[in-house]
Order: sequence, then C-alpha cells, then structure tokens
Amino acid sequence: MSLLKQTIDSIKTTLNQEVFDAAKDRLLNQAKPPESLGVMEDISARLAAIKGTIDVKLTNKRIVVCASDHGVTEEGVSLFPAEVTPQMVLNFARGGASVNVIGNHAGAIVKAADIGVNYDFDQDLPIFHKKVRHGTANFTKERAMTRKEAIQSIEAGIEIVAELEAEAPVDLLGTGDMGIGNTTPSSAIIAAFSGIPVEKLTGRGTGIDDAALANKIAVIQKGLDLHKPDPADPLDILSKVGGLEIGALAGLVLGAAARGIPVICDGLISTAGALIACELAPAARQYLFASHKSVEVGHKYMHDRLGMEPLIDLRFRLGEGTGSAVCMELLDLSTRILADIKTFEEVGVTNI
Amino acid sequence: MSLLKQTIDSIKTTLNQEVFDAAKDRLLNQAKPPESLGVMEDISARLAAIKGTIDVKLTNKRIVVCASDHGVTEEGVSLFPAEVTPQMVLNFARGGASVNVIGNHAGAIVKAADIGVNYDFDQDLPIFHKKVRHGTANFTKERAMTRKEAIQSIEAGIEIVAELEAEAPVDLLGTGDMGIGNTTPSSAIIAAFSGIPVEKLTGRGTGIDDAALANKIAVIQKGLDLHKPDPADPLDILSKVGGLEIGALAGLVLGAAARGIPVICDGLISTAGALIACELAPAARQYLFASHKSVEVGHKYMHDRLGMEPLIDLRFRLGEGTGSAVCMELLDLSTRILADIKTFEEVGVTNI
Repeated sequence: MSLLKQTIDSIKTTLNQEVFDAAKDRLLNQAKPPESLGVMEDISARLAAIKGTIDVKLTNKRIVVCASDHGVTEEGVSLFPAEVTPQMVLNFARGGASVNVIGNHAGAIVKAADIGVNYDFDQDLPIFHKKVRHGTANFTKERAMTRKEAIQSIEAGIEIVAELEAEAPVDLLGTGDMGIGNTTPSSAIIAAFSGIPVEKLTGRGTGIDDAALANKIAVIQKGLDLHKPDPADPLDILSKVGGLEIGALAGLVLGAAARGIPVICDGLISTAGALIACELAPAARQYLFASHKSVEVGHKYMHDRLGMEPLIDLRFRLGEGTGSAVCMELLDLSTRILADIKTFEEVGVTNI
Repeated sequence: MSLLKQTIDSIKTTLNQEVFDAAKDRLLNQAKPPESLGVMEDISARLAAIKGTIDVKLTNKRIVVCASDHGVTEEGVSLFPAEVTPQMVLNFARGGASVNVIGNHAGAIVKAADIGVNYDFDQDLPIFHKKVRHGTANFTKERAMTRKEAIQSIEAGIEIVAELEAEAPVDLLGTGDMGIGNTTPSSAIIAAFSGIPVEKLTGRGTGIDDAALANKIAVIQKGLDLHKPDPADPLDILSKVGGLEIGALAGLVLGAAARGIPVICDGLISTAGALIACELAPAARQYLFASHKSVEVGHKYMHDRLGMEPLIDLRFRLGEGTGSAVCMELLDLSTRILADIKTFEEVGVTNI
C-alpha cells in the first residue's frame, strides 16, 4: 500500500466526543456569559477533542515552509523573478524572513522544505531536502507534473511530519509556502474544484497591476481549458495545474491528521494544499484550523469549500506561514481559556 | 488648574514624524512584498512614532479593569443581578477571571479598580480604591451622576495611570470594564454623540432576549429624552447617561496619552470611555488602538466615530479587558515585525 493511501486510511473519522462534551460543559460553567469568548471557545473545545484532554499544552510548535518553482512564471504572472524562491529558502534557513520573526514570537521552530525549487541547495543546508523535480512545467503548454510526481510531492509532506515527530512529538503544526508564481496554480486549483469563474478567484499575488492581472486570469483559463482537470479527482487537479509545494502542503495536513496533530494552514497557497488534503480525506478537516483571511480573493472560496472561518483578517498577503504563525498564539491562548478560567462554582460568583 | 485640564493640555498633538518615516522606510525595504503584513505594519509604525524608536520593547504591560454599578439595572436591562459586579472584582483580585487568564498569557499584569461599585471592599484588597460613589443613579429618573462626579471618575483613571507609573514605567496599557448593566449607558453615550437611533445601537449585552432588548432600547430612549445631553459636551453626556467606570476608562486613555503610553481599548464599554476621552482631547487618539470588534452592535458606530478599525473579530462579548489582552500580543508582535524582519539588502534577496 502506498504511503499516501496508508496515511489517508489511518486518519480517525471522529474526535474524542467525551472530552469535547466535557470541554463544552466547562466553558458553559465558567464565570462569564455563555459563549462570550466566541470563536476562542469553539477552538479550545476542538483542540481538547483532538488531544483527548481538557488541559491541552501546545508546547512543541513547528512551522514548515514548503518551497517550489513554477514553470508558469514564464507567462509573466508574478512581479518577482523566479530566482527569489531559492534566495528566500536561504533566508528562511538563516532565520531572517518574516515567518522566522513571527514564528519565533509564537515559540515555533520554523524549517523550510525544498519540494521543487529550481536550484540545487547544498545538502548541508538545514532544510528538508525533498526535491521531486526542478519546478513544475508551464501548465499553459503541458501538465504541471505527472500524476506520480503529484503523489510524490504529497508523500514528501507526509514524510516531513514523520521526520519532525522522530525528533520530538509535535503539538501543533503550521503550514507555509514559498514559490514565485504560486498564487496562479492555487487559483487554478480552487477554480477546478469549484467551477467558479477564474476572474472571480484570481488576485494580484505580490502586487501585479491591472494588465498583469488580466494576463494571469487568461493564463489560468488556458491551463484549465487545455487540461480539463477532473473536479472529482484531486490528484488530477494537482498534477495538471498545481504545484509541487502545494502537494507537500496537502501532505503536511494529511500527515498531521493521521498522527492526531492539530494543523493550522496559512494563506492562499497553503489553503490550496489543505483543500487537496480534505478532498482526498474529508476526515482531515477535523484537525485543520484556518488562520487568516488573505487579501487574495480566491482564499474566501477555499474557506467556503472547507466550511471554515479564518481566525484573523489583518490584510496579510505574504504567505511563508506568517498567518499560521500569528494564529498559533491564538490556539495556544484558547487552551488556557478552557483550562484556566474558573467556573462560577469555583469562584463563588452568582450564576443565572 | 484641574488634573483633567492639565492632563488634556499635556497630550502632544503630533507623534515623532522622523521615526515614523524611518519605520515606513524600513518596512518597505524588508524582504517581502510591500505592505504584505497589512495592518501589523501600520501598527508597528505608529508604535515606533509613539515610542520614538524603531526597536520598541513592550515589556511592562498592564491591564486595568474599571468596575462600577449602575442604577439603571433597576429597569431590568441586564440578565445578571448587580451583585455580580463586586463578586467579579473579587474574582479579578484572586486571578480567576477570563481577563486574568488571557492577560497572563499576554504577559500583562491585571488589576481591577473600584470606581463606583455598590459594595464596600476591604481596603487591603489589591485593587485600585477610587470609589466616587456607590453606583450611578437610575438615569430614567435622574441624571446618572453630577458633573463634578463625572470629572472625578475621569480623574480616577488619570490617577491610576500615574500610580502604575510610580511603580514601573508602563510600556502598554490595556483597558477593561466590569459593571452589570453597563452596555446600557455605553449605548446611550454613542447615541448621544452620534444622534443615530437607539435601536440601531443597542445590543443584547450578556444575552437578553427580544422582550428585554425592546425594554433596554426604551430605557435608553427615556434617559436621552429626559436629559437631552449636549452632543458637543462629553462631560454632559457622561454625567447624564454614563457610568462611573466609563469615566475612569476615559481617564485611563487621557492619562496614558499624556504620558506617551500606547493604550489599547477593549469592547463596547471601554470604547465608550475612549470616545469620551477623544472627544475631550482629539490628540489622545494617536495613542489609542482598538482591540476587537464586539458582538454588541453599537461598537461599530463607536469605531466609525473614532475612525478606527479593530484588530480582531472573534465574536467576543465579555468585556473585562479580554479583547485588549488578546491584542496586546499582536501589538507586541508588530514591534518584532518592524525591528527584526531583515531588508532585501541585509539578506541578499533580489528586490523589484
């Protein structure tokens, strides 16, 4: 049995209902108006059900930034040149990037992963070395990757979770991405799944102008028209119009879910990966948390399809896992809300 | 000269423009798409301009929870009985309340303040003892308090900031409230300032039903009709339909602004106080940060009037300073974003 199938099969279909009910009960008895901490209460109860305890401790936090290049950048879909992808991987490894700073604030260890960067990194560079190929093909001309490579990219993500856990149990995993041009395959993926017109799903990425946006929409449409990906087959979509890091991001979600690890996904690209994961294995959704609402317009449609509401809307449009990193602190906080706020009985306050 | 006038006069009318410009410049040169960390970048630049340095350290965080009772609770505007106000003050002092837990997570010291609770606390209780009177009068029958008491309540807040700073310099102040019935005067205040119909501004507080909501709206309307507070005179509004803790919350904002301390305000009641402060001293707004968007409908109109956008929307409706406490971590994080994310030049990444 393939690693992918094995992983999907091992995801539990339900969480710990007993602990979930106990969490809900405690929240309702805390000395505050019922449900007055809104979304934080919902999160805390789900985390408790995932971990099987009221007193969840999210000690070991990890963020994995999956990086890859995209043949479709030949079509002028991005403002930045493709050479920025390997430069940023080096920046992550040195700790100077945005996700390092925000991850550090959240107490998370950040590590990049080369899934398909068009550059040969020194094998001693402290990143996950999981290159499937040197970037995807230009999907306006041929499929982005073979179906076998799509599976390999997902399995790279699954392996990364296993390797992290081999070092120390992971309490919370955050996903992030780096890949010049990768909002293009991400928008293509949600278009392929949903059938929603490409122009409604496509945004300005790192900041392209009107003409470049029109071109980007045309490029995505061309890829969809050429390959006609099957909306019922996530691997078909991923291989035809996806990205290698998007496959690995799906693998991170599947690997985390299979191991009972809550996983928080970042912006448009990470959520494209999460979408692939949840279409392959709907039970993975139970372990998934949406972090932020990106400026990218397609993100909303992904959250709609996942049935999820992001925690914050701070007008981020960066990726890297920066949204995941910010929201790790909120997940952490939610565990304290559930465990540490006293009940009416415990503090002698009149209940209604 | 009164403490209030002296405080208002000492608020600087502009922040450090040179540092603000340097912050904006650094943000634009960091190795990421320009403005891609959205709201966090704006916050970080404003904090830098307040503190006069790029490398802001928000070490000493304080949250003050101003508590008071409300005569208008006689009219059945709240779900909880008034006796809960002193009980919760004791709970804050013991550290078991929601704001203690969330404040602790943010590394803030939380202290309650008795501005007008209808209960005589032991003078050894570790709270700020600033009682102006034992709760307001029922504003459907007489004005909530005298103009002199309104000034006293504001000055109580100003004094609290001074007392905190006498212990240690405060890097970031958060506001919070406790007072059964206090969404009623808060809605009355924004109605009085804005002239917006009461039914548009009035919410369910801790969770009243339709009939009780209709009654609450009628109660607020009755108070406004009886007293006709002058929309150009914040002290007239505060004294006629306000609350003692709301006055102190205004005082916290004024006191912080006068001392150059950034201040983050919580939900409906704290924002009513912030509104009073900024109507008295528009320059105070430069030091003010809106934390969360409350479920309470009137909150939006307060933010509109302040010209501010809250940072998070997690469907909180608790008060106590819980929203301030959550957002302290975001303000803290923003300082790291500005100071610690490297520039293109520093990390050797190609800029566009």
